[in-house]
This record gives sequence, C-alpha cells and structure tokens, in this order.
Amino acid sequence: MTSELKDDVERIAGSDAEYPITDPRPTDTDGATIPFDVEAIRGDFPILDRTVGSYPLAYLDSANSSQKPQVVVETIDDHYLNHNANVARAMHMLGAEATEAYEGARSRIAGFIGAASSEEVVFTKNASEALNLCAYTLGSTLKPGDEIVISTMEHHSNIVPWQLACERTGATLRWFDVTPDGRLDLEKAAADNLINERTKIVSLVWVSNVLGTLNPVRQIADQAHAVGATMIVDGSQGVPQLPTRVADLGADLLAFTGHKMVGPTGIGVLWGRYDLLSEMPPFLGGGEMIEVVRMTGSTYAAPPHRFEAGTPPIAQAVGLAAAADYLETIGMDAIADHEQVITGYALQALQAVDGLTVLGPTELDATGRPVGRGGAISFTLDGKYGPIHPHDVAQFLDSRGVAVRGGHHCARPLHEAYGIQSSTRASFYLYTTTAEIDQLVDALAYTKAFFDK
Amino acid sequence: MTSELKDDVERIAGSDAEYPITDPRPTDTDGATIPFDVEAIRGDFPILDRTVGSYPLAYLDSANSSQKPQVVVETIDDHYLNHNANVARAMHMLGAEATEAYEGARSRIAGFIGAASSEEVVFTKNASEALNLCAYTLGSTLKPGDEIVISTMEHHSNIVPWQLACERTGATLRWFDVTPDGRLDLEKAAADNLINERTKIVSLVWVSNVLGTLNPVRQIADQAHAVGATMIVDGSQGVPQLPTRVADLGADLLAFTGHKMVGPTGIGVLWGRYDLLSEMPPFLGGGEMIEVVRMTGSTYAAPPHRFEAGTPPIAQAVGLAAAADYLETIGMDAIADHEQVITGYALQALQAVDGLTVLGPTELDATGRPVGRGGAISFTLDGKYGPIHPHDVAQFLDSRGVAVRGGHHCARPLHEAYGIQSSTRASFYLYTTTAEIDQLVDALAYTKAFFDK
Repeated sequence: MTSELKDDVERIAGSDAEYPITDPRPTDTDGATIPFDVEAIRGDFPILDRTVGSYPLAYLDSANSSQKPQVVVETIDDHYLNHNANVARAMHMLGAEATEAYEGARSRIAGFIGAASSEEVVFTKNASEALNLCAYTLGSTLKPGDEIVISTMEHHSNIVPWQLACERTGATLRWFDVTPDGRLDLEKAAADNLINERTKIVSLVWVSNVLGTLNPVRQIADQAHAVGATMIVDGSQGVPQLPTRVADLGADLLAFTGHKMVGPTGIGVLWGRYDLLSEMPPFLGGGEMIEVVRMTGSTYAAPPHRFEAGTPPIAQAVGLAAAADYLETIGMDAIADHEQVITGYALQALQAVDGLTVLGPTELDATGRPVGRGGAISFTLDGKYGPIHPHDVAQFLDSRGVAVRGGHHCARPLHEAYGIQSSTRASFYLYTTTAEIDQLVDALAYTKAFFDK
Repeated sequence: MTSELKDDVERIAGSDAEYPITDPRPTDTDGATIPFDVEAIRGDFPILDRTVGSYPLAYLDSANSSQKPQVVVETIDDHYLNHNANVARAMHMLGAEATEAYEGARSRIAGFIGAASSEEVVFTKNASEALNLCAYTLGSTLKPGDEIVISTMEHHSNIVPWQLACERTGATLRWFDVTPDGRLDLEKAAADNLINERTKIVSLVWVSNVLGTLNPVRQIADQAHAVGATMIVDGSQGVPQLPTRVADLGADLLAFTGHKMVGPTGIGVLWGRYDLLSEMPPFLGGGEMIEVVRMTGSTYAAPPHRFEAGTPPIAQAVGLAAAADYLETIGMDAIADHEQVITGYALQALQAVDGLTVLGPTELDATGRPVGRGGAISFTLDGKYGPIHPHDVAQFLDSRGVAVRGGHHCARPLHEAYGIQSSTRASFYLYTTTAEIDQLVDALAYTKAFFDK
C-alpha cells in the first residue's frame, strides 16, 4: 500500500478502529457468560486457515454456501468407504447399513426442525427442487383466477417456479412489496387485499438472503390459513441460523438446503405436514416412488418416498445428518446469538465506511444486536466519482482476503425495487469473527481510497 | 454347515467346481495378453475387504450401485476442505476455484462420453431427474394423438415419467415387447408399425438392468429420426460399463448416473445435442437458470445452465470427474471386456445350479463371452417344493457373504411379461472376480440344499 493510500485508509476506517458493543453472550442460570468458542469452532473448518496472498482468508459468503467441518466430511467418507450401497432395494448387509444410515438421517433432520415424524421429511437435491416440487404438485390444481402470493424479496428460486406454474395454469402471481427500510409492506398488502379468497398458495422467505430481514411468517401463515391457502416457507437462510420448530413457524411446507448449514452440496429438504404431502400428486417418476407399475398405469408410494424418485442423495443425507449433529452440539440458540452479535458488530463497523449504504434493517437493540434481521448484510458503496460497482468491490475485497458476493444475489426484483442493479453482500456464520469484520472494513476503506483517488 | 447339507452342496455345485473358459483378455500389438489386474483394482476399494460373518464380502450388486475407489472419496474431501464455495455466483478465490472445479468436471464428463462440447452436459441429481426433465420439457408440446414409445424392459424411471407426461397431455404410451430370450421384439414392432408418423419421442434403455440385454439403440434411433421423433437413451447401465461415444449411439439425449460408475450419489447427467437443448423450455426454476428475472416474467439462460436451477451438486460433480478419470486410467475397453469375461464365466457357472433359470440372453461366443449383453444376470431358482422366493434367496446369499438384489429391480412390467413377480440379480463390475462368482454358486447351492431338504 502506498503511504498516501494508507493515510486514506486510516482516515476512512483505521486499522485499529474498534466498535464498542456490550457483551451479549448467553448467560447461565447464575448470570455467568457462556463462552461461544469461535476459535475452537474454526479449528473444525480447515479451509478457514487458507490465505489469499499475504492476507488471511475472511470468508464472509456463508449465505451463498457455508463451509464444512471436518466431521461432516469424515462421516461422508466413512459412508462411502465402509457402508455404501443402494437403499431400500438391497437385501444384504451393506444395503441394510446404507438404508439405516439414510433413513436415520431422515429422522435426524426431522428432529432438527421439530417435525412430527420423519415421514414428513422429503430429501431433494436442493431448496430449489423442493420449491419446484411444490409449484408442480400444488400448482397442478390451479386454474385461471387463482392467485399465488410471494414477495419482492424472494430469491429467484421462490419466484421463477411460481411464474412457470402461472404460465402452465393461468393463475395470477401477486406479491408483497418491500418498504424502504427492508420490511414487507404489510400496510399496502392489507390495503390491496393481497391475501384473499382467491389466494391458493402463499410462498414466502423466512429470512431474506439480501436484506437479512426476518419476516413475520407466523402472522402471514395465519392470514393464509384464514382464507384456506397453503403456506410455504423458504427456509434456506433461516434454518441454518435459527432454531427451527415447524409447528411454531406456522408453515405447511418448508424448503431448505444442506450446503448452507455446514452440510454437503447435492441435498435439500422439503418438510411438509403429512396430511398435505399425502394429498400431493407425484412430481418426478421413477424407482422407489411407486407402489405398482404396469405399462398401462401406475400407483404411487406414500410420502416421503412418493417424492424421491430414483437413487436418492444417500451419502449427502448422511452428511447432512452429521451437519445437524454438529450444529446441535454447539447449540442452535448459541449459533443464532453469535450471528446476532456479529451482525450487530458489523452494522456498527460498516458505519465507519463513508459512502456505504446498507440495504435493509439496521436498527440495533440495547445490547448491540440487530432488530428482526439475520446475518446477511448487503450494501452499496459510493465513491467520490459515483457508485463503485459491486463486482469491483468484491474483486478488491478478494485481493485483501475478504470473500463476499457481488451481484444481484439471485434476487433481481428486490434490487430493482431499490432502483439498483446489484449490491455487495457480506454474510456470517458460526465461524465468523469480529477480526474478519475488521478486515472487511479495512478492505472496504482500501477499496474506497483506491476509487476515490 | 451340517455334513448332510455339505454333501448336497457338493452334489449341486461343488466348492471346487471350475468353469473352463479360454483367456479372452485384450492383447497388445505383439499378441501378448494385457493383464487386467483385478486385485490391484480391488485395492482401491477398501469396502471390498469387509467380511460378512466368516465369509468375505462378494459384492455382486453393482447394477444397483457401484462401490467407490479411495481416490474419488479423497477428491471430494479435498474439494470440501480446501476449495468449497458456491459456483458462478462468487467473485472470490474460493468461488473461482469451486467454479473451475465444477465446470472442469463438466468438460471431463463431456470428454468421457465424446460430447461435442461441455455445454451439452447438464448435471442433474440422478438419471431419474434427467429422464423426468425430458418428459416435462419435451412433453410440454405433446397433444392427444401423439405417441411416446418405450419398451417393456425399461426401468421404472423410464416408464413412470412418460405415463405422467401422457396423463398431462393426452398423448399415448406405446412400447416394444420383449421376446422370451430377452430381446426387443423388433418383428412385432415392425408388424405393429410401432414407430410411425405419430411418434414424437422414443425413450429406450441401452443395457437392461434386469436382462443385461444390449439393445440396438442405433438402429432404433435411425427409425425414430426417420419419422422426426426425438431419441432418448437411458444409459444408466450402459455408460458405466461400455465405452460411450454419443455420436455413435445415435441418441439425441442420454441420461446416466454417477453412483453406478464408481462416482458419488447425488449426481446424474443429461447429455443432449446442443441445438435440441436450446429449444427445450426450462424445467426447474431458480437461481443460475435465468437470464433476467422480473416479477412480471423472466427469461432464461442458455443450456446447460437453463436446466440447473439452484446450487448444483458441486462436490458430486467433482467426484464424478474423478470417477471418470479413474475408469479411463484403467480403460473403458478393458473394463467392458472384464465385465464380458466375468459375465461369460458366471453364465457358465450358474448352469451348475439345478433349477436356476436365467432371464435374458445366455448365448456365449467361442471365447466364452456373452453375445449382445452386459453384466446383470437375473434368475429364478426352483427348489424341490417350488420356486424359492428371491427375497429368501437374497437373504441366504447374504448370510454367505454374497450381496445380490432380490425383487423386481424397478422393472415390474418386465417381470410381469415373464409371468413372475420378482427375480434374483447378480451384477458385476471392474472389481468382480471369478472367485466371487464361485462364492455365489456355492451360496446358491447352499440355499437350494436348505430349501430342498
């Protein structure tokens, strides 16, 4: 760094800047702080020791995909090298072991989200498949005049499947708008009678992957149920960071994915109320989803197998169960709180960067934690000569070891609502440290100094 | 084993029985035999060292799912622990590494099947998803009067998607019947004018997962093309065991799966001619398959990304590429020949088991190799008191260390055509030894002796 640039950095943020917050760690019954040992956790993730040039890697892209602890990878290894076989179909030792591992993983995930039964857990390839499954099956009974309600802050995976369903059926897509401070515009929705007797499906994101906004899912589920609509929740960001109890959430169907919750790629989950799943027609046809196949017609298995055509992601389910074990050993309450603390710290720290505007909620409570939001912070950065393109920001941050995402984060309509093309997003997880936030702020200052020259 | 039972076993098969075959190993230009070192190969698969009670494991269920060599598992590990990130979306070091690994895997698989370009390779979760993708997208333009042609020897994954497509569109499902010796009944098909001007889609299995039959795909593709129909091939059994060149195969679309070719679970492939893929509408909606998303409507990316909604099976693609590398290092010609040798040996050896009837082709050529078939051998076993149920057979074999599959093998209509409910299937791969076939025959003799008592 040139000394002139260094001066600019010091001026804008200062490498020694500190952002005072109270200590909001959970306390035990005696009021003593229960330590959240982030350094011990980081020891479980070898990839976090990587460096980028001379900088330590600050991986602030967990809303995109989380890293994996050694134990998840080792569990997958052990499955492949010692217990691998196809499931359900194989009447031999390895087949029995693989089936037990796969169905055991289903039970484990049911427990993780408080499902009434493991039969309510359908394994898919990712959250997108889970949402498309809903759109194809529930969508098959839609007709012109019926309405589907989503929101402007949905991920493309909760927009496009419904657009395609509307094209197939003639149903109408409607949506919640978003207020300037990044909340669902509930007043406008009420004034517009958004959820009404024509509404058949409401599909809403629990925690926005861009704004971080925590949506009032329960309240909207109640409105959906009052008009007889089915409530679907996209939990891709919510389930990895918040303790999840499906009964409390109020959803009829919940989609989430493994790779964002320290689990493997190649696996997602659709949870559904069993009576609803039972009524849903098949989606993908093939092995294991059938009851009897004749050339002239077939009958179908009961859920969850009805929705799992072909050889399922067996090793991935086993890995996902190991991920759930890992998260629960640390404790989802503690993980959620850590994310709140880090997010509060980051929201304060980012205020030091001149020209930086956070999209979405920024309010903090007395303990320094954010109000009603999770840990994805998207922002724009204005330089002396105008907005600095998020791709440039991401590239400059990368050169300083900081991994963030630049772009529309698969939520283009939301960016359009804000009148922008794209943004830069930093996102956090159980292994994120305040030092990494400091590194982000320093790297932003460096970026800005460069573009302001 | 009681001595009485032992005598029965000796009588029926004999543990020292040998099934003489000529040495059909490939030879080099000087005519010297190129050794296929099955013991060295087995050293790459730690699971094959397992025992069942006092018996060595004889894993004869590879048509159900293959085992994985250490190098595939280690490659997946290395990806997760050192290079993991989301792909395409991430502008940082790990994102670039993961994207390079994922797109590199696509190129690797394109090379493995002789595709014209990596853009012709779509990653799915399994072969079933690949076939359903075809049924939903190509199926979307079908109308009453249109015909889809399959065969009675299809796996359920190549039956049910087409039945569902017919239900959605009013198209008619027709099929090739199977002759008593396990071949497509081409004469009856010709007499019935099966493929005609109403045929829009022909979807056919390359190698039967039950009969082992190698179908004349190229000949039928030519017939399909002559009437303007699209030719889809289910290569789930064929691609793992035969050198594959899509241009020679004559298919427009080819589906196969990773876990049957020493690769991971959770990944399949749809190869398609690029011009055809370009015309196909989207299937699953979500991130990465779009061009521009607006709340009022979206446009879609070009293939292959159009068909890969959401976070793809990244680590699984990387593992599948490692599997392709592993197979090609040994050589697909050599692997195919090994399977032929083992299958020929097994077909001869099984003749020693009284009451055993092989479903499908059994003819051998002068070198002891089977004619026009691969390495899945399904059979029924009659005892003194009638047919022995395949579930019982599978269970008895398991108790002697032999892993086979008992049931309808996801091909119930084929079994119905043979007038049976189910069968027992032994299937082989590059790590299968003649000693394992001997163990199978001994265990069958034991089973029969038990049920004949």
